[in-house]
Parts: sequence; structure tokens; C-alpha cells
Amino acid sequence: MKSKQIEEGLQFTPKFNAEGLIPAIAQDAETGQVLMVAWMNREALDYTIATGRGTYFSRSRKKLWKKGEESGHIQQVQQILVDCDQDCLILKVTVDAGQCHVGYQSCFYRALKPGSDKDLELIAEKTYDPEATYKK
Amino acid sequence: MKSKQIEEGLQFTPKFNAEGLIPAIAQDAETGQVLMVAWMNREALDYTIATGRGTYFSRSRKKLWKKGEESGHIQQVQQILVDCDQDCLILKVTVDAGQCHVGYQSCFYRALKPGSDKDLELIAEKTYDPEATYKK
Repeated sequence: MKSKQIEEGLQFTPKFNAEGLIPAIAQDAETGQVLMVAWMNREALDYTIATGRGTYFSRSRKKLWKKGEESGHIQQVQQILVDCDQDCLILKVTVDAGQCHVGYQSCFYRALKPGSDKDLELIAEKTYDPEATYKK
Repeated sequence: MKSKQIEEGLQFTPKFNAEGLIPAIAQDAETGQVLMVAWMNREALDYTIATGRGTYFSRSRKKLWKKGEESGHIQQVQQILVDCDQDCLILKVTVDAGQCHVGYQSCFYRALKPGSDKDLELIAEKTYDPEATYKK
């Protein structure tokens, strides 16, 4: 398919990488906070589109990962956005309190400022106790 | 380095993939809109931290890409966030009108809804004329 069709067309032709995966950003549909970034294979994307439930491919476990199947922290997908060259997705999701397995609402709970000494600063507080959640 | 240190520590130890790259999400620091996703190598990340200017590694051109060097649409980086396993970054950026080379403010100008027929819908209007910009 030509570049112009991919960039300007309305046909959804997601481009998976050599491992058959495409990165997907989960973004809170209400607040705009980026919650996590994970990968999808074709099956995970089709399942997400069919069910509206955020589903990924776990690269460590090498299998379909229905987000929340263990933790209960599911994602209801309102909208799926695709970028210009169709090799990255955003899922606009509705979620409960706690999307990161470490205990925070977002996986992005640490930050640094340009020009600083490259140490991270904690920018969030935990919203749930992961030990209680995952040891159930 | 142990998983707990990577996840809970304040040492910045970004994990680059087999190609020496880490994905970076540029997010508007004011509006929360995700503007683009690109890749950084070590040099691009160090340059971004040192200068506060959003800089990536172009996989197509195989070289450092100081965002805006051709288009003028630069990114002033306010903050760099890292996720739990330190293999993905968010750059909180201040930008002008137009970050995508196709002419939109964001690369994510098309979307579909779960349960739909998988055709995309245009969800944005162009904010500048890329032909005028890139033919200068």
C-alpha cells in the first residue's frame, strides 16, 4: 500500500513489526493521563476491537494478556487511535484506580527534568496495594 | 539490576532494545494530547536531557533527528517520565501548531470504535500546510 493511502486514507491497515507486534498506548479517556504502553499482536487487537476490552500480547509470558484478568484492573476501550504511518496505537480507556502492577495509577510515576543530574523523582503516590491484589 | 530496583528505585537506567532504541511518547505538557511516538538511541536521549530539545533517532534515515530541524516544529521538553520497567519514555513537551508531517497537530488524527466495522474516522483538522513547510 502506498504511503499516501496509509497516511491519508481511512482504511485501517495496522503495521505489525518483525515480531508481529504493534505498540499500544493506554490513555485515560477522561484525564488524558498515559497509563501504560504494551504490545499487541493481531489476535490481541482483533479481540480488543471485538470486545472493547483492552487486550495485549505479553512478551514475557508469550501469550494473550487480557488486562485485568489477574488484578481485576480491566480497561474499557472507548476509542482506538492510529498514527500517520499506522505503526502505533492509542487506546482511550476507562479504568478504575490502579493500572500499574507496582501499585500506581499509571506506569509513569517517575520523572526527570532536562538539565538535571539524571536522577529520577517520584511524581505519584500508590493507589492500591499490589501485594494484596496479586496474592489473592 | 534487580527488578525491584528498576521499578522502585530512583536511578535512571533506561532499557534500550536489541537495536539500541527505546520508544518515546511526545505528549503536550498543557493539553495532555499525545502528539507522536518515536524512538531514541542513547545519543538522542542524552542530547534531549542536555539541551531540553526533543531529539530522536530516525529509523528510516538511520541518524539523529532533532525534531523540527527541517519543519521548524520543535519540541521544548519540560519533563521526561519513565515507566515501571524503564523501557518506555514520555516527553512532556511545549510545541507550536503542527507536530505531524502530514499536517496535523498530532500524528493520531484517525480513530475507530470497538465493535465498529474497522474503518477509520477522521477526528482532527490540519493545522498547517506540510507542502509549504517541507518544500521551503
